[in-house]
Amino acid sequence: MKIWQKDKDVSKQVETFTVGKDRELDEQMAAFDVLGSLAHTRMLESIGLLTAADLQLVQQELKAIYREIAAGNFSIAEGVEDVHSQVEFMLTERIGEAGKKIHSGRSRNDQVLVDLKLFFRSQIRVMVELTTQLFNRLITLSEEHQHKLLPGYTHLQIAMPSSFGLWFGAYAESLADDMELMLAAWKICNKNPLGSAAGYGSSFPLNRTMTAMLLGFESLNYNVVYAQMGRGKTERIVAQAMSSVAATLAKFAMDVCLFINQNFGFISFPEELTTGSSIMPHKKNPDVFELIRSRCNKIQALPNEIALMTTNLPSGYHRDLQLLKENLFPSFQSLTDCLEIMDFMLQYIVVKDHILDDPKYLYLFSVEAVNEQVLNGVPFREAYRNVGREIEEGIFKMPAEIKHTHEGSIGDLRNAEIREAFNNVVAGFNFAKVDTAIASLLAE
Amino acid sequence: MKIWQKDKDVSKQVETFTVGKDRELDEQMAAFDVLGSLAHTRMLESIGLLTAADLQLVQQELKAIYREIAAGNFSIAEGVEDVHSQVEFMLTERIGEAGKKIHSGRSRNDQVLVDLKLFFRSQIRVMVELTTQLFNRLITLSEEHQHKLLPGYTHLQIAMPSSFGLWFGAYAESLADDMELMLAAWKICNKNPLGSAAGYGSSFPLNRTMTAMLLGFESLNYNVVYAQMGRGKTERIVAQAMSSVAATLAKFAMDVCLFINQNFGFISFPEELTTGSSIMPHKKNPDVFELIRSRCNKIQALPNEIALMTTNLPSGYHRDLQLLKENLFPSFQSLTDCLEIMDFMLQYIVVKDHILDDPKYLYLFSVEAVNEQVLNGVPFREAYRNVGREIEEGIFKMPAEIKHTHEGSIGDLRNAEIREAFNNVVAGFNFAKVDTAIASLLAE
Amino acid sequence: MKIWQKDKDVSKQVETFTVGKDRELDEQMAAFDVLGSLAHTRMLESIGLLTAADLQLVQQELKAIYREIAAGNFSIAEGVEDVHSQVEFMLTERIGEAGKKIHSGRSRNDQVLVDLKLFFRSQIRVMVELTTQLFNRLITLSEEHQHKLLPGYTHLQIAMPSSFGLWFGAYAESLADDMELMLAAWKICNKNPLGSAAGYGSSFPLNRTMTAMLLGFESLNYNVVYAQMGRGKTERIVAQAMSSVAATLAKFAMDVCLFINQNFGFISFPEELTTGSSIMPHKKNPDVFELIRSRCNKIQALPNEIALMTTNLPSGYHRDLQLLKENLFPSFQSLTDCLEIMDFMLQYIVVKDHILDDPKYLYLFSVEAVNEQVLNGVPFREAYRNVGREIEEGIFKMPAEIKHTHEGSIGDLRNAEIREAFNNVVAGFNFAKVDTAIASLLAE
Amino acid sequence: MKIWQKDKDVSKQVETFTVGKDRELDEQMAAFDVLGSLAHTRMLESIGLLTAADLQLVQQELKAIYREIAAGNFSIAEGVEDVHSQVEFMLTERIGEAGKKIHSGRSRNDQVLVDLKLFFRSQIRVMVELTTQLFNRLITLSEEHQHKLLPGYTHLQIAMPSSFGLWFGAYAESLADDMELMLAAWKICNKNPLGSAAGYGSSFPLNRTMTAMLLGFESLNYNVVYAQMGRGKTERIVAQAMSSVAATLAKFAMDVCLFINQNFGFISFPEELTTGSSIMPHKKNPDVFELIRSRCNKIQALPNEIALMTTNLPSGYHRDLQLLKENLFPSFQSLTDCLEIMDFMLQYIVVKDHILDDPKYLYLFSVEAVNEQVLNGVPFREAYRNVGREIEEGIFKMPAEIKHTHEGSIGDLRNAEIREAFNNVVAGFNFAKVDTAIASLLAE
Repeated sequence: MKIWQKDKDVSKQVETFTVGKDRELDEQMAAFDVLGSLAHTRMLESIGLLTAADLQLVQQELKAIYREIAAGNFSIAEGVEDVHSQVEFMLTERIGEAGKKIHSGRSRNDQVLVDLKLFFRSQIRVMVELTTQLFNRLITLSEEHQHKLLPGYTHLQIAMPSSFGLWFGAYAESLADDMELMLAAWKICNKNPLGSAAGYGSSFPLNRTMTAMLLGFESLNYNVVYAQMGRGKTERIVAQAMSSVAATLAKFAMDVCLFINQNFGFISFPEELTTGSSIMPHKKNPDVFELIRSRCNKIQALPNEIALMTTNLPSGYHRDLQLLKENLFPSFQSLTDCLEIMDFMLQYIVVKDHILDDPKYLYLFSVEAVNEQVLNGVPFREAYRNVGREIEEGIFKMPAEIKHTHEGSIGDLRNAEIREAFNNVVAGFNFAKVDTAIASLLAE
Repeated sequence: MKIWQKDKDVSKQVETFTVGKDRELDEQMAAFDVLGSLAHTRMLESIGLLTAADLQLVQQELKAIYREIAAGNFSIAEGVEDVHSQVEFMLTERIGEAGKKIHSGRSRNDQVLVDLKLFFRSQIRVMVELTTQLFNRLITLSEEHQHKLLPGYTHLQIAMPSSFGLWFGAYAESLADDMELMLAAWKICNKNPLGSAAGYGSSFPLNRTMTAMLLGFESLNYNVVYAQMGRGKTERIVAQAMSSVAATLAKFAMDVCLFINQNFGFISFPEELTTGSSIMPHKKNPDVFELIRSRCNKIQALPNEIALMTTNLPSGYHRDLQLLKENLFPSFQSLTDCLEIMDFMLQYIVVKDHILDDPKYLYLFSVEAVNEQVLNGVPFREAYRNVGREIEEGIFKMPAEIKHTHEGSIGDLRNAEIREAFNNVVAGFNFAKVDTAIASLLAE
Repeated sequence: MKIWQKDKDVSKQVETFTVGKDRELDEQMAAFDVLGSLAHTRMLESIGLLTAADLQLVQQELKAIYREIAAGNFSIAEGVEDVHSQVEFMLTERIGEAGKKIHSGRSRNDQVLVDLKLFFRSQIRVMVELTTQLFNRLITLSEEHQHKLLPGYTHLQIAMPSSFGLWFGAYAESLADDMELMLAAWKICNKNPLGSAAGYGSSFPLNRTMTAMLLGFESLNYNVVYAQMGRGKTERIVAQAMSSVAATLAKFAMDVCLFINQNFGFISFPEELTTGSSIMPHKKNPDVFELIRSRCNKIQALPNEIALMTTNLPSGYHRDLQLLKENLFPSFQSLTDCLEIMDFMLQYIVVKDHILDDPKYLYLFSVEAVNEQVLNGVPFREAYRNVGREIEEGIFKMPAEIKHTHEGSIGDLRNAEIREAFNNVVAGFNFAKVDTAIASLLAE
Repeated sequence: MKIWQKDKDVSKQVETFTVGKDRELDEQMAAFDVLGSLAHTRMLESIGLLTAADLQLVQQELKAIYREIAAGNFSIAEGVEDVHSQVEFMLTERIGEAGKKIHSGRSRNDQVLVDLKLFFRSQIRVMVELTTQLFNRLITLSEEHQHKLLPGYTHLQIAMPSSFGLWFGAYAESLADDMELMLAAWKICNKNPLGSAAGYGSSFPLNRTMTAMLLGFESLNYNVVYAQMGRGKTERIVAQAMSSVAATLAKFAMDVCLFINQNFGFISFPEELTTGSSIMPHKKNPDVFELIRSRCNKIQALPNEIALMTTNLPSGYHRDLQLLKENLFPSFQSLTDCLEIMDFMLQYIVVKDHILDDPKYLYLFSVEAVNEQVLNGVPFREAYRNVGREIEEGIFKMPAEIKHTHEGSIGDLRNAEIREAFNNVVAGFNFAKVDTAIASLLAE
């Protein structure tokens, strides 16, 4: 079943060890493997390495397999090494000799490279869409709760007035910056490696520009040695982009765990969304947010893991690269889950009112008091000392009202600008171009 | 089915997210969960929280479940949250009310803690045994090939004569040092956390010394807050010990990949143990060693992942800790596989003879030549310059013979001392003490 | 000297511990601290918090201090806590009361934030310029050596023909992709945090859009809570971008160390650029490349270090963030050094001719032979088996000539396209806009 | 000045790049370099490579240099490459030809190896002593405050009663486990690498057992290839041991930052030991603990950095290893500082009384109430539901008293056992043996 098999049998123990989790992980790439073959075979025909008749047979059957995959009716058979072999095996079984010809001008190496890039593109898209949904939720909450005040902490010490408007909005804006990294990852993924063969190109007169266009790639990984070098590097960069979103989510989750703690008590969730404990009947544990935090910290560790597994490997393919799938693939699901469930949970968040009425928050307003004096002409250092003295003497009072008016402050959140910034980055992905290409590739 | 369930239903989405991979991972802890309950219930009876009759019922049935687990007839039922619930569920189903009483004086938290420690002990033992086997293989190869010379490199430049005796022996000695870290991990695992309840102890008059003795623990995690703090910390330390073994294996695998490369060509393996390539019919790829390297580098990343997931969490249990199982548990299998297959592969290693006859290795002997002059009374700096001159003038010749006689050199490998050092460390584990305790706990 | 000093003296031991390396590291931010104050004070005057007369005094003196810094005549005095205090101290000493007023509407927190962003912008620019220089060198070398063949390896096994044209060009193209991440980092840096005060905004009617424009920022970190959240995040993203360049350099350095090794022997450097050894007179060690590799691997570890230091900190400033400077600031110098010295070294690289004449490289051409048969109409699998048989029987011969013609292959490197891609990314930085703003800010 | 310098001049730029920070960092190894030479030369004389007269001269002068170093009168001169060259240079300047002979039978590689091992031993000792001091402080505080109750949290939710006795004691016990890893690191450091030369041994009849004994090493790194392989590995293991202490300190610091926060308010420190803020006059920031946390998290990142810098390097020396000093050496100082200042701060910690009187902590006692019913014969699940009902109906009351009596609980801290465990691990270092050897080596 293994294509490279020569006359001698490879030890069973070696095979089990080397195949690893490939069968299980590869199924996620199946649809993309078919897309790659659809493009590759059209190109092969254009340069005379496949007859028009064979092409028609191959295209028709590959599209059928694509539909089976989409319908969930695909699996890698016992004894078949990986997804590429499985697709080729099915094809050959159904259309005979023509199926064997699709491997011309292609190596397993560039076939995996293109599958991975197409798969990463699809995963990035899902992550961008779910991030957009969460972004919108956060902006909505920021608007809804914009006048509810919250103590702001520095050094985890009560410092200055903040607000739920600021708090929700901050994480929305954080996601906007995270999308810059995601866009960089997208651009690096969106280049065609197909045609690089085993990393040194081919003596066939391949048309790589044609497959790039057919697959909706923005351009090519031109240099074939670099195309192969992209393995590991692309994974690391995608993981770095994911780690940035993950860091935002983890920080938010940490805030939630703190704010839901009874000593803070700023927010709560309905009982159905928290969990109890076997021997402490009164608790409402924020397990979902603890697990978001934990999953996201795990994702934050991923780029380093990839670096450790690829560092100091000289150029050229090494089998080491196969294992990068093991933690990266499940991380897509994990981050996707986190984005979804955070959005789900935030529908139900309950925000407490009048938090700052508690006298322990009185000194939050010390800076406002200093500034008020300054606006009335008292030099800053003097005003600062005045307020310090009032506090020491216990006669400090809260200012009549809180007036923060500048851009991005409590009184002027600038959520419209943040939304515009977010949308501008997301527009850069241009998913529509990819859609058009793929639709055309799959068209009957 | 979930014990902590109150009257309201927890959202399905939340449950799926929070349960995660627990069912799958927890099965590995099943036998240890039963052992913990065997000890816990005997203690409960001794302090009057369980009747003698109930104890007998419970012990009998727990031992039956233990045998089922050992026979592979155990799984966590659909809808059951974790291994602890499953065991308790089975028990209650079979012996009724008595089964419900085993939870007294115990929290899910210390139950998991003790399961993990028992599980880690068993995994450490497997790793130590497989490391011993590989160690022996390396020493044997070192003895067998002790007179076969090899170029030694510094800066990856040809430097001085080395030998296969040195090369194999070096990695054996490396494993001996790795066992020091593994022993430290063992000692940290081999302390009883049971009785710490939710991390703050219990108002029941538990006898923690008794459960420690029953489970073969060397001593206790005395302080209950510390017992809970051990979660995450124990995992990190076990992972650090594993990373040290992994680093040794990865380095050896890198050497193998280099030495099997045709430009070096120092070693080879039978064709059945290497793999070919779909378009390069002449190759013998060392996939097994590339994958050992890759898996071991992945394991090297594990302590950092655990650190990232636990850092800056205040004391006390957090749900975050649940996810530490996800990469740690499969790493036990992965390292175990690597130890086994490396030992398997090394049975077949073919070592080339007469490597140093190639003239490109002539200058390896320059230092010997310097030393020979020094032993004949020429000052070092002068001898050094003499040899430098001979080389520049192209008249340098290989010395008549190579005589390295000091401890640990080509001529005196000291493998007996290395073996003694290895055995001394391994003796420190004292697995027999654990065996005796567990056998006694399971005895009818 | 410390502005926040109240009446009681902070223990000397505490002060030494908390100040750490700030004095030393902060000097690198001095010029940027002055730029921030130039913008801030112009804004203060515009909203009536500074008189026109005071503004003129302050601007004049700040510009004088800027020139002193530029001339290297600036240091943080013994006993002064940090760069901000030093600048303010100098100002007050020289122009009296007016100097004290510049702190209005600003906290140490947003002052550091803006200093860091301006500093990072300047460092990114240096890195982009040096990367451009190295990119050009690599393209030039690729063109110069485009017809010199090299064995291509997969699994570190001799695989297919490659070329120096491909090898140099691959690393050039890698740098082009690295610039995508650097551009994302630039965009995240190029937003104004000034006006966020201690992370919760100010009750003064600040004009943050004005300072953004004066400092040449593309836009604002609108939300003030997010502006503060950018501390640590910005550092991590800049480090991630640096790690990508570093990974490219480290991989190239690994290739160099392998190719200069006597078993490969593909390249060499003049003796003056390598080092010898105290007891091995014949060696030419590639220390520079080993240290590039090591420095770059250290830089690859940096994002993870930053993640570990910031993870699980709730929102709001923490003193922890101060320490991020300690490894990040020296990394700028380190990566800059690596980019410069690699470019320097590559001027002198000597590339060996006719490498593939060595018979051990014969099988490199097996794929070409298969393809040739295929182009002549033999089915792929059959051609594959034919060549395999020729090799087994020892009758395989090198094809008459090597013809790789497709995009990005040996015969068609596409360096022009790679250069265009590189230039397109670099154009996105738009350094000119920043120059114009800063020049205007400093104009008399 | 550079010993390996041949006739041609190494480019200045290359030299600056390659020397790096060696001069600065190497000064910390100076005393150990002299110790190594004292032992090496006595051995050289014993095997006839140094005359008795030369040995006397050399020993006398090396001891003089050792005293100069101890007195702080040593530095590496401008233009001298490293500490080894500086010592040799001073020696030769003072005693002429004899000074040049000490390099026989030694390479720079094993000279560095032994210097590092001796240096690490001395640093481990300092860390163990400071850890002991902090351990004692924590035990003392645990005893002093053993009856003061504290809420215990799980999921950061109020859970069960805890105490300051438990809290301080937990961190003491954590340090005891950390010492297990430190002891493993010590054992790995405490083996003699001298005599391994450039990593492949020597043709001189060296007596490595003799130098091991003279330097107080427990045994040898026997295999010379392994001795060299210890470079990087030893650093990583020492860093792992440090990371464990660091993790304990960081967690404690996180607790402190939380407990000093006004919403918790469990502890405080005198004003002189906290810091204020330029615009928030009422704050008492725990900067010292934030910086302990941050420094310790940085140390936690160190083992991974070392792994990244050494992974996938084949066996044999590489110049990469030089850079490991850059972050490791300052980390010794950093961790030492943290241990010292934490001990210093804890002298002044103020612990609040009667914390649990606040009604928000009422439900802490729910588990006690359940247990009380159980001890009175109510089945657990029923008692559990009873208490749950009382809480829901608002009629739950605090139990009369809190009785936790088992080992390691509030009422029975077992600090004596914890102290004994700590002392047992520390006894394993046997510093006295090293002292005796070094004293003898330095004796006139």
